[in-house]
Amino acid sequence: MSLFPRAFRACGIHAGIGKSKSKPDLALFVSEKPCRAAGVFTRNQVKAAPVLLSQKWIRSGQAQAILVNSGCANACTGKAGLKDAEALELESARALGLKTRDILSASTGVIGQRLPVESVKAGIRRLAQRIRLGENDPSEAVQAMMTTDTVPKFEGRAVHPGYRIWGCVKGAGMIHPNLATMLSFILTDAEVSAHDLRQALKISVDQSFNCLTVDGDTSTNDSVFILANGMSGIKLRGKQDLLRFGENLDALCLSLAKKMAKDGEGATRRVDISVFGARSDEDARAVARTVATSPLVKTAVFGNDANWGRIMAAIGRSGAPVNPEKIGISFGDLTVVKKGVAAAYSEKKASQILRGKVIPIGIDLGMGKGRAQYFTCDFSFDYVKINAEYRT
Amino acid sequence: MSLFPRAFRACGIHAGIGKSKSKPDLALFVSEKPCRAAGVFTRNQVKAAPVLLSQKWIRSGQAQAILVNSGCANACTGKAGLKDAEALELESARALGLKTRDILSASTGVIGQRLPVESVKAGIRRLAQRIRLGENDPSEAVQAMMTTDTVPKFEGRAVHPGYRIWGCVKGAGMIHPNLATMLSFILTDAEVSAHDLRQALKISVDQSFNCLTVDGDTSTNDSVFILANGMSGIKLRGKQDLLRFGENLDALCLSLAKKMAKDGEGATRRVDISVFGARSDEDARAVARTVATSPLVKTAVFGNDANWGRIMAAIGRSGAPVNPEKIGISFGDLTVVKKGVAAAYSEKKASQILRGKVIPIGIDLGMGKGRAQYFTCDFSFDYVKINAEYRT
Repeated sequence: MSLFPRAFRACGIHAGIGKSKSKPDLALFVSEKPCRAAGVFTRNQVKAAPVLLSQKWIRSGQAQAILVNSGCANACTGKAGLKDAEALELESARALGLKTRDILSASTGVIGQRLPVESVKAGIRRLAQRIRLGENDPSEAVQAMMTTDTVPKFEGRAVHPGYRIWGCVKGAGMIHPNLATMLSFILTDAEVSAHDLRQALKISVDQSFNCLTVDGDTSTNDSVFILANGMSGIKLRGKQDLLRFGENLDALCLSLAKKMAKDGEGATRRVDISVFGARSDEDARAVARTVATSPLVKTAVFGNDANWGRIMAAIGRSGAPVNPEKIGISFGDLTVVKKGVAAAYSEKKASQILRGKVIPIGIDLGMGKGRAQYFTCDFSFDYVKINAEYRT
Repeated sequence: MSLFPRAFRACGIHAGIGKSKSKPDLALFVSEKPCRAAGVFTRNQVKAAPVLLSQKWIRSGQAQAILVNSGCANACTGKAGLKDAEALELESARALGLKTRDILSASTGVIGQRLPVESVKAGIRRLAQRIRLGENDPSEAVQAMMTTDTVPKFEGRAVHPGYRIWGCVKGAGMIHPNLATMLSFILTDAEVSAHDLRQALKISVDQSFNCLTVDGDTSTNDSVFILANGMSGIKLRGKQDLLRFGENLDALCLSLAKKMAKDGEGATRRVDISVFGARSDEDARAVARTVATSPLVKTAVFGNDANWGRIMAAIGRSGAPVNPEKIGISFGDLTVVKKGVAAAYSEKKASQILRGKVIPIGIDLGMGKGRAQYFTCDFSFDYVKINAEYRT
């Protein structure tokens, strides 16, 4: 955890929110100093209470702490839910000696249930105390965000000339562009303006979290926050500085997105879909998204079945203009479709590739220079099991 | 089968096309006299060879026979596949003493493989002989269309003043509007013009097959044909006649669509989604489609879980404008959501409704008069099993 940025602290705790009797379900991420901040939120019209609040606060371009809980989404809870979220931000501000507007919050879990406000308040007080006493356990904080995730997902980077960017992410199901039940918090000790943070975050999210789908469902709670506290003493100002920051943020978000795809609900492997030769990047994206979302493609991958016909069918219904006779498809370096019909390939070799941990599917539309990449996972018995039994 | 229309014959046979060693996989539907005809086809840009041919023939508004096979979709087979389809139409025409342009054809099964043309030709000759000898076994013909369907699906209606409409349908997976791996053939002994058939078919399909989804995948092969041979001696001409014909066609297509939803791959129950109170019918349709396609909603139904939060999330991401605070949701006559938040309802009662054979989900957007209905099924372990193992 040596790549955690300077002067940030994070702790997690079990506050009794969800079903689990011991898993951490409440966390605080706190900076010693005020931060520049930016955020990206779900485009779902049904927005959870913490999303509505955080959208309001983030406009100032400033924040100092993030409160997050799992086990309850605090979505579809109406005005009462909004009051709950406000009460918890107020409690966090009090316990940390901050203003309410300095607190961003995020929730994930079951929709439609109220938070146990008093237990959460008690949890906040204990977390704040631990942080005041100098504790710092980002890994535990990340665990507190997890729902059906099977592993905590975080990563840090040291960037020349000496600042750090660290990010964590949560999300396994209901994952689809714009965004989905995914929460990601990115912290850096570089000094960056809120405007530059906003721009960089938008670009990075578009290439990573917005190119990820597990099941085509977009949630009510998605939030990505980035906080920069400047405590490395390094100011990013010139074009070169911001370019390097952007590249590192891109790489971090992409890596976190891939971790999410791999840890998709019930996933046994990750599927990377690369589309090129489209008339435009937008067309390429439509094709990549349609293939990545197809349950028939995803179940075929789960069954190690090089059933490229389902990929052709998905390409054809994507809405992007295609010429079936120009389409090429490959699994890794194995060409399975040439000019729209089966290439001479070994089913055995195809099946071997499909047994790998990452399945690279390449789609050449043969029409232009547009390209896009999408990340997903296979569709297994366990996806059904996890989601048939999630709430009960 | 007494409702099968006069002067039509249908037979099925095992021609050795698919994996099965005995299941019928080839069928002919033949009228004694030339028919007026109309058709609706997949909007997938990747179209199977028989779709391309049938689209060409149907323009004349005339046809006399339908050739159909399962086990091989003859899709993504290029020019060679098109020649195969042409050769089979020619063989059918010869064996039945018709012209090639009188034959409509349809295929369903694995994409990307060639048909065993010689075996199919032999099968066509045997079928034509049986039909010439007066055999008529529509039930066997419907069996020949089945792939992962578990039951043959057909239905006949007697319409005042004395004609019949009969329809069959095939389709269990890859089912989604515009259309999907679904084939439906509708036969009537009324006399109707090709123009009136086209209009009536379009309206009926829009309300039935285009409001059906199993997995959001639209196939390369979907075709709906309607043939009218006039052999009841009843001519439909006036507005009243056509209205009654249209109503009966609507009811037939709706019933066939519901049979398909119930027999969706791995389905344990049918889900009927009714949306009302939308600003427009189009908005209502977008909401109904998004809810019907959500794997999270469908797995919850499989798990008997009244997880209305997932329905709210699907409504919110449908693209139709909604006001979360006005949304109501019910399972059957049990209101579970009122004004966007949980209503006081018994989880036990909800679970009972979810254990029924048909799950009626009502969604009131509270904004206008737009309404739509959609049919789907739950998402079970067996869906994954069927589709992970389909080709191998």
